[in-house]
Amino acid sequence: MDCIFCKIIAGDLPSYKVYEDDKVCAFLDVLPIHPGHTIIVPKIHVSDVESLDDGELCAMVTVMKKIGKAVMEGLGVKGYSILLDNKDAANQHVPHVHFHLVPRKEGDGLGRWPQSGYSEGEAEECLKQIQEKL
Amino acid sequence: MDCIFCKIIAGDLPSYKVYEDDKVCAFLDVLPIHPGHTIIVPKIHVSDVESLDDGELCAMVTVMKKIGKAVMEGLGVKGYSILLDNKDAANQHVPHVHFHLVPRKEGDGLGRWPQSGYSEGEAEECLKQIQEKL
Repeated sequence: MDCIFCKIIAGDLPSYKVYEDDKVCAFLDVLPIHPGHTIIVPKIHVSDVESLDDGELCAMVTVMKKIGKAVMEGLGVKGYSILLDNKDAANQHVPHVHFHLVPRKEGDGLGRWPQSGYSEGEAEECLKQIQEKL
Repeated sequence: MDCIFCKIIAGDLPSYKVYEDDKVCAFLDVLPIHPGHTIIVPKIHVSDVESLDDGELCAMVTVMKKIGKAVMEGLGVKGYSILLDNKDAANQHVPHVHFHLVPRKEGDGLGRWPQSGYSEGEAEECLKQIQEKL
Protein backbone atom coordinates (compact mmCIF):
# COMPACT_ATOMS: atom_id res chain seq x y z
CA MET A 1 0.00 0.00 0.00
CA ASP A 2 1.34 3.39 -0.90
CA CYS A 3 -1.12 5.28 1.29
CA ILE A 4 0.36 8.07 3.39
CA PHE A 5 -2.34 7.69 6.07
CA CYS A 6 -1.76 3.92 6.30
CA LYS A 7 1.95 4.65 6.82
CA ILE A 8 1.14 7.13 9.59
CA ILE A 9 -1.19 4.61 11.27
CA ALA A 10 1.49 1.91 11.06
CA GLY A 11 4.12 4.28 12.45
CA ASP A 12 6.17 4.09 9.24
CA LEU A 13 5.91 7.86 8.89
CA PRO A 14 6.34 10.28 11.80
CA SER A 15 3.21 12.07 12.98
CA TYR A 16 1.66 13.84 15.93
CA LYS A 17 -0.85 11.18 16.98
CA VAL A 18 -3.68 12.67 18.99
CA TYR A 19 -5.58 9.45 19.62
CA GLU A 20 -5.92 5.85 18.58
CA ASP A 21 -7.97 2.81 19.45
CA ASP A 22 -8.58 -0.49 17.66
CA LYS A 23 -10.65 1.08 14.87
CA VAL A 24 -9.75 4.77 14.60
CA CYS A 25 -6.61 6.92 14.51
CA ALA A 26 -6.33 10.72 14.74
CA PHE A 27 -3.29 12.92 14.13
CA LEU A 28 -2.45 16.57 13.61
CA ASP A 29 -2.51 17.90 10.05
CA VAL A 30 1.04 19.23 9.60
CA LEU A 31 -0.34 21.98 7.37
CA PRO A 32 -3.14 23.16 9.66
CA ILE A 33 -5.90 25.60 8.79
CA HIS A 34 -5.60 26.54 12.49
CA PRO A 35 -3.29 24.95 15.10
CA GLY A 36 -4.88 21.78 16.47
CA HIS A 37 -6.40 20.88 13.08
CA THR A 38 -6.83 17.12 13.40
CA ILE A 39 -7.40 14.37 10.82
CA ILE A 40 -9.54 11.40 11.88
CA VAL A 41 -9.26 8.15 9.91
CA PRO A 42 -10.38 4.53 10.14
CA LYS A 43 -7.43 2.17 10.66
CA ILE A 44 -8.50 -0.02 7.76
CA HIS A 45 -7.72 1.39 4.34
CA VAL A 46 -10.94 2.41 2.65
CA SER A 47 -11.07 5.20 0.15
CA ASP A 48 -14.51 6.67 0.68
CA VAL A 49 -17.64 6.80 2.83
CA GLU A 50 -19.38 4.16 0.69
CA SER A 51 -16.62 1.65 1.54
CA LEU A 52 -17.11 2.10 5.31
CA ASP A 53 -19.66 0.04 7.16
CA ASP A 54 -21.97 1.90 9.52
CA GLY A 55 -20.07 0.71 12.59
CA GLU A 56 -16.77 2.08 11.30
CA LEU A 57 -18.40 5.40 10.42
CA CYS A 58 -19.94 5.60 13.90
CA ALA A 59 -16.58 4.82 15.49
CA MET A 60 -15.06 7.71 13.53
CA VAL A 61 -17.65 10.29 14.61
CA THR A 62 -17.61 9.10 18.21
CA VAL A 63 -13.87 9.79 18.25
CA MET A 64 -14.46 13.07 16.40
CA LYS A 65 -16.79 14.25 19.17
CA LYS A 66 -14.31 13.23 21.88
CA ILE A 67 -11.43 15.03 20.15
CA GLY A 68 -13.54 18.12 19.45
CA LYS A 69 -14.19 18.53 23.17
CA ALA A 70 -10.50 18.04 24.03
CA VAL A 71 -9.42 20.50 21.31
CA MET A 72 -11.79 23.16 22.65
CA GLU A 73 -10.79 22.62 26.27
CA GLY A 74 -7.09 22.14 25.62
CA LEU A 75 -6.60 24.98 23.17
CA GLY A 76 -9.20 27.33 24.60
CA VAL A 77 -11.17 27.64 21.37
CA LYS A 78 -14.93 27.96 21.34
CA GLY A 79 -15.93 25.92 18.32
CA TYR A 80 -14.78 23.82 15.39
CA SER A 81 -15.74 22.88 11.87
CA ILE A 82 -15.91 19.36 10.46
CA LEU A 83 -15.07 18.74 6.81
CA LEU A 84 -14.99 15.58 4.72
CA ASP A 85 -14.41 15.51 0.97
CA ASN A 86 -15.71 12.26 -0.47
CA LYS A 87 -14.16 11.05 -3.76
CA ASP A 88 -12.07 12.73 -6.47
CA ALA A 89 -14.96 14.89 -7.63
CA ALA A 90 -14.97 16.50 -4.17
CA ASN A 91 -11.25 17.19 -4.45
CA GLN A 92 -10.38 14.50 -1.88
CA HIS A 93 -6.58 14.71 -1.69
CA VAL A 94 -5.71 11.46 0.11
CA PRO A 95 -7.79 8.43 -0.97
CA HIS A 96 -8.21 7.12 2.59
CA VAL A 97 -11.51 8.42 3.98
CA HIS A 98 -10.96 11.13 6.62
CA PHE A 99 -12.65 13.86 8.60
CA HIS A 100 -10.92 17.19 9.22
CA LEU A 101 -11.62 18.79 12.58
CA VAL A 102 -10.68 22.47 12.35
CA PRO A 103 -10.61 24.64 15.51
CA ARG A 104 -12.43 27.93 14.88
CA LYS A 105 -12.30 31.40 16.34
CA GLU A 106 -14.95 34.07 15.91
CA GLY A 107 -13.94 36.43 13.15
CA ASP A 108 -11.29 34.07 11.79
CA GLY A 109 -12.45 35.00 8.31
CA LEU A 110 -12.90 31.43 7.07
CA GLY A 111 -15.67 31.88 4.54
CA ARG A 112 -18.41 29.69 3.21
CA TRP A 113 -18.94 28.47 -0.32
CA PRO A 114 -21.31 30.65 -2.35
CA GLN A 115 -24.96 29.66 -2.33
CA SER A 116 -27.62 30.20 -4.98
CA GLY A 117 -31.32 29.47 -5.36
CA TYR A 118 -33.43 26.93 -7.26
CA SER A 119 -35.28 27.89 -10.42
CA GLU A 120 -39.02 27.15 -10.68
CA GLY A 121 -39.61 23.39 -10.27
CA GLU A 122 -35.93 22.58 -9.95
CA ALA A 123 -36.01 21.68 -6.22
CA GLU A 124 -39.03 19.38 -6.76
CA GLU A 125 -37.23 17.58 -9.61
CA CYS A 126 -34.04 17.30 -7.59
CA LEU A 127 -35.96 15.86 -4.63
CA LYS A 128 -37.66 13.30 -6.87
CA GLN A 129 -34.36 12.15 -8.36
CA ILE A 130 -32.77 11.67 -4.94
CA GLN A 131 -35.77 9.92 -3.43
CA GLU A 132 -35.99 7.45 -6.32
CA LYS A 133 -32.59 6.15 -5.19
CA LEU A 134 -33.28 6.10 -1.45
CA MET B 1 -39.16 26.99 20.43
CA ASP B 2 -38.27 29.50 17.78
CA CYS B 3 -35.97 27.15 15.87
CA ILE B 4 -36.40 27.12 12.10
CA PHE B 5 -35.22 23.50 11.82
CA CYS B 6 -37.64 22.36 14.55
CA LYS B 7 -40.43 24.04 12.58
CA ILE B 8 -39.38 22.24 9.40
CA ILE B 9 -39.25 18.90 11.25
CA ALA B 10 -42.71 19.52 12.71
CA GLY B 11 -44.10 20.51 9.29
CA ASP B 12 -44.88 24.03 10.49
CA LEU B 13 -42.67 25.44 7.76
CA PRO B 14 -42.70 24.13 4.17
CA SER B 15 -39.61 22.20 3.06
CA TYR B 16 -38.36 19.65 0.59
CA LYS B 17 -37.96 16.68 2.91
CA VAL B 18 -35.53 14.15 1.53
CA TYR B 19 -35.77 11.62 4.35
CA GLU B 20 -37.00 11.09 7.87
CA ASP B 21 -37.10 8.36 10.48
CA ASP B 22 -37.72 8.40 14.22
CA LYS B 23 -34.41 10.12 15.03
CA VAL B 24 -33.23 12.00 11.94
CA CYS B 25 -34.66 14.36 9.34
CA ALA B 26 -33.06 15.57 6.09
CA PHE B 27 -34.24 18.31 3.75
CA LEU B 28 -32.95 20.36 0.84
CA ASP B 29 -31.16 23.60 1.65
CA VAL B 30 -33.25 26.18 -0.25
CA LEU B 31 -30.07 28.20 -0.89
CA PRO B 32 -27.91 25.36 -2.18
CA ILE B 33 -24.18 25.47 -2.84
CA HIS B 34 -25.07 22.98 -5.60
CA PRO B 35 -28.54 21.51 -6.38
CA GLY B 36 -29.23 18.57 -4.08
CA HIS B 37 -27.43 20.23 -1.15
CA THR B 38 -29.06 18.51 1.83
CA ILE B 39 -29.18 19.38 5.53
CA ILE B 40 -29.26 16.47 8.01
CA VAL B 41 -30.52 17.12 11.55
CA PRO B 42 -31.50 15.18 14.66
CA LYS B 43 -35.21 15.47 15.39
CA ILE B 44 -34.57 16.52 18.97
CA HIS B 45 -33.47 20.12 19.38
CA VAL B 46 -29.84 20.19 20.42
CA SER B 47 -27.59 23.05 19.52
CA ASP B 48 -24.22 21.38 19.10
CA VAL B 49 -22.26 18.14 18.81
CA GLU B 50 -21.53 18.10 22.56
CA SER B 51 -25.27 17.97 23.30
CA LEU B 52 -25.79 14.87 21.13
CA ASP B 53 -25.31 11.43 22.58
CA ASP B 54 -23.20 9.00 20.55
CA GLY B 55 -26.28 7.11 19.35
CA GLU B 56 -27.87 10.25 17.93
CA LEU B 57 -24.63 11.23 16.22
CA CYS B 58 -24.32 7.73 14.73
CA ALA B 59 -27.91 7.89 13.51
CA MET B 60 -27.11 11.18 11.76
CA VAL B 61 -24.04 9.86 9.91
CA THR B 62 -25.75 6.61 8.98
CA VAL B 63 -28.46 8.69 7.28
CA MET B 64 -25.78 10.96 5.79
CA LYS B 65 -24.14 7.96 4.12
CA LYS B 66 -27.48 6.71 2.77
CA ILE B 67 -28.39 10.12 1.38
CA GLY B 68 -24.92 10.65 -0.09
CA LYS B 69 -25.32 7.49 -2.16
CA ALA B 70 -28.80 8.48 -3.32
CA VAL B 71 -27.64 12.00 -4.21
CA MET B 72 -24.79 10.63 -6.32
CA GLU B 73 -26.97 8.06 -8.07
CA GLY B 74 -30.01 10.26 -8.46
CA LEU B 75 -28.25 13.42 -9.61
CA GLY B 76 -25.39 11.74 -11.45
CA VAL B 77 -22.67 13.45 -9.44
CA LYS B 78 -19.43 11.69 -8.54
CA GLY B 79 -18.75 12.95 -5.03
CA TYR B 80 -19.84 15.17 -2.18
CA SER B 81 -18.48 17.18 0.70
CA ILE B 82 -19.67 17.07 4.29
CA LEU B 83 -19.58 20.20 6.43
CA LEU B 84 -20.59 20.87 10.00
CA ASP B 85 -19.96 24.14 11.83
CA ASN B 86 -20.10 23.56 15.58
CA LYS B 87 -20.98 26.57 17.80
CA ASP B 88 -21.02 30.33 17.23
CA ALA B 89 -17.23 30.53 16.97
CA ALA B 90 -17.47 28.29 13.90
CA ASN B 91 -20.05 30.60 12.37
CA GLN B 92 -22.88 28.08 12.93
CA HIS B 93 -25.92 29.90 11.51
CA VAL B 94 -28.79 27.83 12.92
CA PRO B 95 -28.31 26.67 16.52
CA HIS B 96 -29.69 23.17 15.86
CA VAL B 97 -26.78 20.84 15.09
CA HIS B 98 -26.66 19.89 11.38
CA PHE B 99 -24.51 18.36 8.67
CA HIS B 100 -24.45 19.84 5.17
CA LEU B 101 -24.09 17.33 2.35
CA VAL B 102 -22.95 19.21 -0.77
CA PRO B 103 -22.88 17.42 -4.15
CA ARG B 104 -19.54 18.10 -5.89
CA LYS B 105 -18.35 18.16 -9.48
CA GLU B 106 -14.73 18.05 -10.60
CA GLY B 107 -13.54 21.54 -11.35
CA ASP B 108 -16.46 23.18 -9.56
CA GLY B 109 -14.00 25.69 -8.15
CA LEU B 110 -15.07 25.28 -4.52
CA GLY B 111 -11.82 26.06 -2.74
CA ARG B 112 -10.30 25.03 0.54
CA TRP B 113 -9.42 27.19 3.50
CA PRO B 114 -5.79 28.35 3.50
CA GLN B 115 -3.32 26.19 5.40
CA SER B 116 -0.11 27.15 7.15
CA GLY B 117 2.67 25.37 9.03
CA TYR B 118 3.67 25.00 12.69
CA SER B 119 6.60 26.92 14.15
CA GLU B 120 9.35 24.99 15.98
CA GLY B 121 7.83 23.14 18.96
CA GLU B 122 4.31 24.44 18.32
CA ALA B 123 2.83 21.13 17.14
CA GLU B 124 4.28 19.29 20.17
CA GLU B 125 2.78 21.87 22.54
CA CYS B 126 -0.57 21.75 20.76
CA LEU B 127 -0.63 17.94 20.94
CA LYS B 128 0.16 18.04 24.67
CA GLN B 129 -2.65 20.53 25.37
CA ILE B 130 -5.20 18.40 23.49
CA GLN B 131 -4.09 15.11 25.02
CA GLU B 132 -4.31 16.49 28.56
CA LYS B 133 -8.05 16.87 27.98
CA LEU B 134 -8.63 13.52 26.30
